[in-house]
Parts: sequence; structure tokens; C-alpha cells
Amino acid sequence: MFKIALIGAGRIGLIHAKSIAANKDSQLVAIADVFAEAAQKLAAETGAEARSVDDILADPGIDAVLIASSTDTHSDLIERATAAGKAVLCEKPVDLSLERALTALQKADATGKPVMIGFNRRFDPNFASLKAAFDKGEIGKGELLAITSFDPAPPPASYVKVSGGLFRDMMIHDFDIACWIYGSAPARVTATGSSIVDPAIGAEGDVDTAVVTLAWDDGRIAVIKNSRRAGYGYDQRIELLGSEGLLSAQNVLENTVQKITNAGALSAKPVYFFLERYMRAYEIEWTAFIEALKSGATMPATLREGVAALACAEAATQSVKTGQTVAVTPAMLGA
Amino acid sequence: MFKIALIGAGRIGLIHAKSIAANKDSQLVAIADVFAEAAQKLAAETGAEARSVDDILADPGIDAVLIASSTDTHSDLIERATAAGKAVLCEKPVDLSLERALTALQKADATGKPVMIGFNRRFDPNFASLKAAFDKGEIGKGELLAITSFDPAPPPASYVKVSGGLFRDMMIHDFDIACWIYGSAPARVTATGSSIVDPAIGAEGDVDTAVVTLAWDDGRIAVIKNSRRAGYGYDQRIELLGSEGLLSAQNVLENTVQKITNAGALSAKPVYFFLERYMRAYEIEWTAFIEALKSGATMPATLREGVAALACAEAATQSVKTGQTVAVTPAMLGA
Amino acid sequence: MFKIALIGAGRIGLIHAKSIAANKDSQLVAIADVFAEAAQKLAAETGAEARSVDDILADPGIDAVLIASSTDTHSDLIERATAAGKAVLCEKPVDLSLERALTALQKADATGKPVMIGFNRRFDPNFASLKAAFDKGEIGKGELLAITSFDPAPPPASYVKVSGGLFRDMMIHDFDIACWIYGSAPARVTATGSSIVDPAIGAEGDVDTAVVTLAWDDGRIAVIKNSRRAGYGYDQRIELLGSEGLLSAQNVLENTVQKITNAGALSAKPVYFFLERYMRAYEIEWTAFIEALKSGATMPATLREGVAALACAEAATQSVKTGQTVAVTPAMLGA
Amino acid sequence: MFKIALIGAGRIGLIHAKSIAANKDSQLVAIADVFAEAAQKLAAETGAEARSVDDILADPGIDAVLIASSTDTHSDLIERATAAGKAVLCEKPVDLSLERALTALQKADATGKPVMIGFNRRFDPNFASLKAAFDKGEIGKGELLAITSFDPAPPPASYVKVSGGLFRDMMIHDFDIACWIYGSAPARVTATGSSIVDPAIGAEGDVDTAVVTLAWDDGRIAVIKNSRRAGYGYDQRIELLGSEGLLSAQNVLENTVQKITNAGALSAKPVYFFLERYMRAYEIEWTAFIEALKSGATMPATLREGVAALACAEAATQSVKTGQTVAVTPAMLGA
Repeated sequence: MFKIALIGAGRIGLIHAKSIAANKDSQLVAIADVFAEAAQKLAAETGAEARSVDDILADPGIDAVLIASSTDTHSDLIERATAAGKAVLCEKPVDLSLERALTALQKADATGKPVMIGFNRRFDPNFASLKAAFDKGEIGKGELLAITSFDPAPPPASYVKVSGGLFRDMMIHDFDIACWIYGSAPARVTATGSSIVDPAIGAEGDVDTAVVTLAWDDGRIAVIKNSRRAGYGYDQRIELLGSEGLLSAQNVLENTVQKITNAGALSAKPVYFFLERYMRAYEIEWTAFIEALKSGATMPATLREGVAALACAEAATQSVKTGQTVAVTPAMLGA
Repeated sequence: MFKIALIGAGRIGLIHAKSIAANKDSQLVAIADVFAEAAQKLAAETGAEARSVDDILADPGIDAVLIASSTDTHSDLIERATAAGKAVLCEKPVDLSLERALTALQKADATGKPVMIGFNRRFDPNFASLKAAFDKGEIGKGELLAITSFDPAPPPASYVKVSGGLFRDMMIHDFDIACWIYGSAPARVTATGSSIVDPAIGAEGDVDTAVVTLAWDDGRIAVIKNSRRAGYGYDQRIELLGSEGLLSAQNVLENTVQKITNAGALSAKPVYFFLERYMRAYEIEWTAFIEALKSGATMPATLREGVAALACAEAATQSVKTGQTVAVTPAMLGA
Repeated sequence: MFKIALIGAGRIGLIHAKSIAANKDSQLVAIADVFAEAAQKLAAETGAEARSVDDILADPGIDAVLIASSTDTHSDLIERATAAGKAVLCEKPVDLSLERALTALQKADATGKPVMIGFNRRFDPNFASLKAAFDKGEIGKGELLAITSFDPAPPPASYVKVSGGLFRDMMIHDFDIACWIYGSAPARVTATGSSIVDPAIGAEGDVDTAVVTLAWDDGRIAVIKNSRRAGYGYDQRIELLGSEGLLSAQNVLENTVQKITNAGALSAKPVYFFLERYMRAYEIEWTAFIEALKSGATMPATLREGVAALACAEAATQSVKTGQTVAVTPAMLGA
Repeated sequence: MFKIALIGAGRIGLIHAKSIAANKDSQLVAIADVFAEAAQKLAAETGAEARSVDDILADPGIDAVLIASSTDTHSDLIERATAAGKAVLCEKPVDLSLERALTALQKADATGKPVMIGFNRRFDPNFASLKAAFDKGEIGKGELLAITSFDPAPPPASYVKVSGGLFRDMMIHDFDIACWIYGSAPARVTATGSSIVDPAIGAEGDVDTAVVTLAWDDGRIAVIKNSRRAGYGYDQRIELLGSEGLLSAQNVLENTVQKITNAGALSAKPVYFFLERYMRAYEIEWTAFIEALKSGATMPATLREGVAALACAEAATQSVKTGQTVAVTPAMLGA
């Protein structure tokens, strides 16, 4: 039984608390939050104890720390928790600053403690099935990967301001999916973006609609489409052309009902947002973390991979400003 | 908080135990089973107490009884539990004997205690969406209902022998769905059946493949197809033609992945069996029972409706033997 | 080059005239119709000659006769044309009277001339693909066949009056499909029907909504659903459960466009009616007739098979009246 | 009745000859080809006369010229035919040289004769339905357009050598579709490409797999994916995200049959190539040309639009070489 501390008692922390409770090999024992009340409330609900971060890190009885606090605290907490001998599962993105994340990677690596980044989509059963079929060679060699990822509605401009921008905040997931499927980070990134959904997003210097192309040195290509507003729900699809066929993972729909009338055949929309779509993925993610802890195997989404996704985001951010393809250098990947 | 006793600690009892635990308004306090060990094991896992049926029924602290024991005990337990002042949720079918079930209905009605029959499919989100759309008039008046219901693999002949036959054991669900969608029991039943899947089933005097047509006096028709063996999984679909269109509820598939190669476009199969397909339905069913207890509203699947489904099964059993259409009389419905 | 005479210059005759013209091995040389003007008009358009039936049958230069006149003339014309040494393609149904059709079968057989019945659906590329896959054993042994066949809108009561009823006029196609797929006629027929779409149809003693179950002696079952009004178009589907899987042929849709909005995902309806759905099937049917003429092979839909479909219709008509299962005897099949 | 001359009696010329014959308002009277035999053969089959180009252009009885000869002859023939007072339908692309095409545009415009470019995909009923729904405002304002366009198998390297490259030869269709849907040419083009399918294509300096992003000044984006090899058939899809929803046009499949077995649910592939997919589109294209000739309306795909697609191809060709976004200037569009 692994004793777990949760840092961050917000919406995503709550989801993780449920997964920790549902796993027979983990127990949530401590919760910290900058808002003491939030920590106390969740602690009361879960039977855990509200404690300070210092206290948690100093406690040798705690095996692992789940970091679900604000992004600007991630690197610090990864460094401190690994230095304190804890295993870590940290929410994405690693950091808004690639430089800072690289330092955290270096320091955490030095401790030898395992750090997993919460790329929940890898654990979506549909995406995982696609990946498994691809890895078994069912469509031969990968050539052209296309990821569609649309949110249902744009966030408020106040959120956009501190988010690090669409590439670091939203497309970070898709960069990770692309690197995960192909098994390595791309060599070059080319981005096109605009603010057409909400002018307030453009006023913050960000984009709300973007297409990013990733290129590998052996000729493989990936293209990611993002929009902050699909309107009809959460549109999350992957399509991979290989030398012997096409694999796709389609959306999860609200139900299987169809109505055919004179107006046409009406089916259900995709489920509304990430909680509906990825609830099961969060549970599986946590199980995968615990299984890796138990077996000592490499984490199924490493800190280094979290840095790679951030390097893609960094490159895309530059590319969309300059209109030029940007190289993803070994240094950007912490190599 | 309703205190619940569970009678029957087998596979289906286990499912219900989870639903009871997951509902914040119910608590599983007692478990009885003819195999004392089974009751004790489940009691240990759930924090309930293993007790005898007599003991449970005599305990004024128990509000409701969930009957998940073998079918031949249902009528007795419904009568005794309601007489003891308990609300009841009883698994389907009510009984293998329509006559016996009618007596239980009469006695339970006399107590005024609510009895719900566990027609879990009504609570499947897909079927419930279809029903809701139909009730809102989205396809006008119902005219021709078609239900497809195939199990993945036939049961052993030993099970068939005591099952009451395909109509009482398996198609009972579909009879209920038909009556539920149209809002009343049919006037006439016509059945065709054969034993083509497994000769051992035929040797028991049962069929493994059947088509039953139900007719209402106003001209509405329903047709049910059953097979004990689909092979590819659990095939559970509804299709309703109305005066203004067609509503259908399709299967739930294992995932959303598609692979297109030179051999064609390969998608996932339906999920394998009822646990995969209806787990969520069982949870919702229990919630609906508790909500009805709280509000005093009519149960969302009454004992009388359980008797109606059994009357259809009785009629179908006769029809398949005689090659004649069989009337469903008011007496058969307990009217 | 086969010289063809067309008897019947109505809507369906016109379709056949196009198919005859499109085939490089056939030439339409003569057209007869009880309305001389209709024959002359179509003759002018096609370069054929308007002639009397007597004249056509007496002309040794004419190889084959396509009978597309009213149903009550079919048996006579089949007998006369074969007696005159012509090959025949006759529209369905063979006759409204099974007895009359049996006589025609006997007489035509005695001439040794080939007679094909225009069961166009066998030549629909989708249905033909399903049949081919089944015949290759892709789903093992056939067990439960389900045919859905809904017209978009009911015919006028005046048509119903002379149509021979839904079973002979509309379901005749589905009886043929069932016999074609299973490779033989059923042993027993059980029908349920009502007039719920249009009371005027009921007033003529006919049904507009019906479910018919066919049973074979080895346990195979087929069920056919018919409605005179789907409203949304022509609903034509086949679904066949075998010992190793399920084959289905779905509807042909107007287009492949889908619109997803907050209201759901809207796709196209099935194409409107038989001309849209089966135009290609009519062309292939004609080609198949010509190919059989050239090779001397058995016709791909024989007069005997036309009689079998009519025997099913006769049995269904009796069954719906009596509420009893009706046997299809060897005598009814002309055996 | 318009008298038509066809220049180019190859594969695509043959398709057009059929469309001309099928239209009651057009008659194919003359055919020219650099291979006299090809012209004579097709002339014999169609009842037209094999003539020289000079002869055709000098004949005042010929109303319109359909140019289906090799790409390097297009600009010359457009100029000469319009100068001779003929209306023109010219196959895509206008030219391999944007500069040369711009001259042809200028000269043809000066004659005032209508010139249509054979962008057949605009006339595909599925794409046309999508466009019509978008133009009616069914998904609000267009924001992010995605076009997938994969050929089944790569062409031989000998073809690639003279093709002008993937952008001018293959993606030219997709550039046109993007401009057509959005109603104008983009401001900027960014391309990523590689030769991963066939090294022989890379050896010719061309790419076989590419992603191109088009950006409009108001923030609209389009992205086009091309591969020379899908393997499973011709993959031709459009997906358009608007402010109020998503419109898509999916592939046309070989048939509607589905087989569900233990191995999954197998459906048909997309039809194999452009002849199967776009045969109907070619017929409609020709009808649209004739209708525009009759009414005097603007051609439904103008020479100026053909130049715009070529300008996109030119920009993409530069972008893929330089790794930079390339502007599409007014001069490139002939403005």
C-alpha cells in the first residue's frame, strides 16, 4: 500500500483523489493547498489529513506526491519532492518555461526518483487501442498523423492571460500524443494560428485556432488542429496513415440513439468535455503510476517526455510569431 | 439513509451490493444466502452482517429488501417481505409460474408496500434516451417496434433445464421493454422458435432462436428476435418506427477505433455481455428505486409490470407449441 | 444481339427500355401496350416499333419478351410467349392467384423456354455482396434472417384495392429475398398485420404494417417487417445472423455529409424510393438475363422461384386472417 | 445544341466524351490528338470527326473546345481557342508555370470568352452538399477547414518527373476546394513535405506526403493533407469547423455491407480511385458548363480561380523548400 500526498485540492485534485481511493494499492493520507480551507474540505471528505507541503515532504511515511497545484509551482515541487525521496505524478504542463523545466528534469534525474507527467489522454482506452494496434504493426510504418483537438468553449480571457498560451496550455496534450505515437520528439515544428473565436484571446497575444505541423528527420509528419471552440462538445480524434492502412480513434458520443425523420438522421454529439471523456483515463493513469511504482518499470509518461512536449510548444510559439519553421534541438529536449 | 438487506449473494447480488454502497442514501446492513459462506464472504467485504431471512424480515430497522436469490424463491420472498413492511426490489423474472406470480401480486398489493422488478435495461442510458425521445413525440405515434437481443454464447444445458425456457428467462427482458415503450401489455402474442444453436437445448424442450410478435388492439406491433448465440458479443438494439420517423438505439462498442486497410474498414465489436453493457444501468436502477422510496412515487418498474412480462412469456411458450396466436387476457395481467 | 420486345410501356417498362438500350447485346425492337399511344410514344423515343402482342409473338425474329404489363396479364403472357418460343423476363409478382401461377409454371416448363422473374433486389450491389459473403461461408450457417422493408409513403386506396394486398404486392420482394438467401422456400409462415398507417387501407381489407415469420424445417428462421410508410424514405435493410457472425446490408444514403452542432450530429436520410435505390439493380438484372440467355445457364431468378414467393404471400394472407401458422406445401410450390 | 471539339483523346478525354454525349444540349463533333490514331479511334466510337487543332479552331461551327491534352499545351490552347471565339473547358492545372498561366488569363480575359477549369470535385454531390449547407449559414462563420486527399497508390517516377510536383499536380484540387469553400484565395501558405512513400519520388526532388496550411487575413485557416499512397483506396474528405458547428463530407464506400464476427465489425473500403468516386461529378461538371453557356452566367470554376489554385501550389513549392511561410500576393493572383 503506497501512502500518497496530494498537493492541490482544486478540480483536478479532486479527480485524482477519487482515483487514489479507487486503487487498492494506494491510500491518500495527506492533502496540501495554498487555500487551507480547500485542503481541509477535501481531507474531511477523503479521510486524509490536511498538512503543509513542508510537512508532507519531511514525512518519511509518504511514498509519493501527486502535484495538482498551479503550473508555476510544478518545477519547484518536482525538485523538492524527488529530493525528499518521493515518487511524483505531476499534472501537465511541466512548466510554462522550457528552461525552468529543463533544470527540474536535470535535478529530478539526479535523484533517481521516478516522475510521471499526467498526460491522461495516453490512457484513454480508445487512444490506447489505436497505439497498441499501431505498435503491433497493423498498418505498417507510420507516415502521416493527424490529431484533432477542439474544446467546447473558450476559456475566459483572464485564464488565457496566465495560461502560457494555447500551445503550452492546450496543444501540450497533442504534442505529447504525437511524440508518444511516433516514439520520439520531432525535429521541426511549423505553426499557423489566429484569433478568430474570441478577440479577447487575441488581445492577450494568444491564438484560439491553430494548426501545427511536426516533422521527423525520416520523413514522418504529424499535424495538429486546435480550436478553443467546437460548440458541440469535446472533439478528440486521432488518425494515423501508415504504409499499410489508416487507424483512427473517433469521438465518444453521448449515446447510441439515432432518429431518422424527413429532416435527416440525427445522432448524438460527442460528450461535452474532458471530465466526461477522460474520467476513465484518469483512473487508468493512476493505476499505471502505481503499477510502475510496484514493478520499478519506467513510468508510462516520463518527465523527459513532459519536457519534449513543452519543447514542441516553445517551438510552435516561436513559429507562429516568425512564420518560420523552428528546429527542436537536442538541448531543448534536455539531451 | 435507507437500511437495506440483500437476499442472495451470487453474481447479481454482488453487483447490487456495489450499487447500494455507491448510493449515499442507502446502506447495506444485512445479507442472507442459502449458502451461509457466500453470505459471510460478501458481508465481510461490504461491512454488512450475514443474517437469516427470518431475522432480516423481523428486523424493524431494515427498510428494504433486495431479492437476488433463485427465481423459485421470488414470489415467497415478495409476499413475506411486503407483509413484514419492507419495500422490495426483486430480480426478474417474478416467477416461472404466472399463476404463482399473480398470487404474489395480489398479496403484495394488499400490503401497500412498493415492489420494483429489476428490469435493468429500462435504465440503460441509450434505451432511456430512446424512450424519452419517443415520449416527447419526436417520431409521432408508435407503429412498429423491433427488438434485437442476442446473447454472446448459449448457457449450459443444465442451466436451460431450470431456467423456465428462453421466453421466461431471456426474452422476459424484451417483453418488458416492449410493454414499457408502448405503455401497456399486448393483446396477442405469436411465437416462432427453434433449436438450431445447440441440440442440447432442444433436447430440454427449449428453443435457442426465436421470433415473437406482439400485437396491440389499436394496431401497434412489436417484434422481438432472440438468439442464445451471437458469437461476437452482446447484441442489444431497439428500433421503433413511428408515424413521423424511426428511433433506434444501437449497440455499445468496445472502443471507437477503426482500421482501414485493403481488407476493409474494421471497427470494434459490441461489448461482450450484460456486465459490460449494463453495469451503469444497474447503478441507475438502484438510484431510481431509492428515489422512488424517498418521494413515494410509483416504482419505475412495478410488480404488475413484471407480471405482464411473464404473461407475454407464458403466451409465447404456448404459441410456439401450438402454432397459434395466443391472447393475453386481463386475467393473465392480474386485472 | 438479342431482339427484344417490351409488353407494357408504363413507368417500369420505361426503366427496362433504358437497360435494354444500355446493353450492347440487346436491342429493343418492338413495344406493345393496351394504350396504343403509350406504346407509340416510347417506340418513338427508343427507335423501336409499336406492335400488337399477337404480332410480336408471331415474329420469329424476336428472341425475348419483357413483360411489364399489369399483373393480371402475366400468366397468360408467360404461357403465350414461351409457347411461341420466346425467352421471358416478367415483372413480379407472377400472378395474384397462386393457382393460376402454378398453371403458368407448368405450361412454361413444358416449353423448355427460360423465364426469369424481375426480382430486382437480388441485383442490388449491397444485397448481392451480402449474399456472396454468406455463400462463401463468412458467417457460417444461417440461423436468423431479418428483412426490413418500408416504403416512404402509402399508395392510394384505389391502388390497394387491385394490388392483391401487401403480401402479394410489396412483401413479395422480401419473400423472394428470404428464399434466395437461404436457398429454398420455407415450410411454415406466420403473419401479424394491422392497418395503422391509413384506415382506407384497412377498409379495403388490407394491412399496411406487418411482420411475417418464415420457418424452415431445419430450424432456420426469417422475419420480415413491412410498413407502407417510413416517411423519411425507402428503408431497405437485410441482417443475417449466422453461427459465426452477423452480416448486414444497410441503407443507401442521399450523401455522406454530416453536420454536428449543439443539436446533435445530422446525417443524410436513405434515398427516397425504389428508382433512386434500385436503378443500378435494374441494369444489372437485365445484364444477368442477357448473360443467362447467352450461356444457357439457369436464370438467376426463375419462374419457379416467383411461384415460391407467391406461395409465401398466399400463406401469409391466410395466416394474418386466421391467427395460425400456415404450412407451405409442396403442391403450393409446384413440386 | 452546342457543337463541341475535344482536344486530347486520352483517358480523361474519353470520360468527357461520354459526358458530352449524355447531355442533350451538346454534341461532340471533332476530336484532335497529337496521336492521330487515338483521335481516330475515339472519333469512330463517338461519331465525331478526327481533325487537327488548327482546323477545329478555324471552324465557325464549333462553339466550345474541351482541352484535355497534356498540361504543357493548356495555356497555348486557352489563348488560341478564346481568340478564335470559342468557349473553353480546360482540365486542371492551368499550367505548371504560374507566370505562363497569368499571361493566358490576361489574354483570355481580353477576348471576353468564358473559360472554365475542370475542377471536378466541386461537382461531387457530397462536396456540393457540404458547400451548400455552409453557404446557407448552417454552421455560422468558417474558421478551420481540413481537407484529406490521399491517392490509393503512387504514380511511377517517370510521371512524377513531368508532373510539376505534388503541389501542382495533386494538391491543386485541394487548393481549389479550399478557395472555393472560403470564397477567396489565402494570404499565406506554409508547407511541410517529405518523401516517405517512395524514394524514387524524392529522387526527382518531389514529395509524396505533405501538409499545407493556408491562412486568410481575417484569421480563417485551412489545412490540406496529401499522400500519394493510402493503399486502401481513394480517401477524399472535407471537414469544416464553423462558429456554430462542424460540417464534414465522408468517403464514398464500395457498399453498405457490414460483417460482425469475433474479429470485429468489418465494413467496405472507400471506392478505389477518381473514376469510381468522381464519375458522377464529371457528368455534373459538363452539365454545369453547358448551363453556364446557355445562360451566360459566370462559369462555376473560372480560369482566374484556376490561376489562384496554381498560385497556392507555387507558394507551397517555395515554402517546402525554404521552411518559411510564403505570401500569396495580388500579382500572383493576376489582380
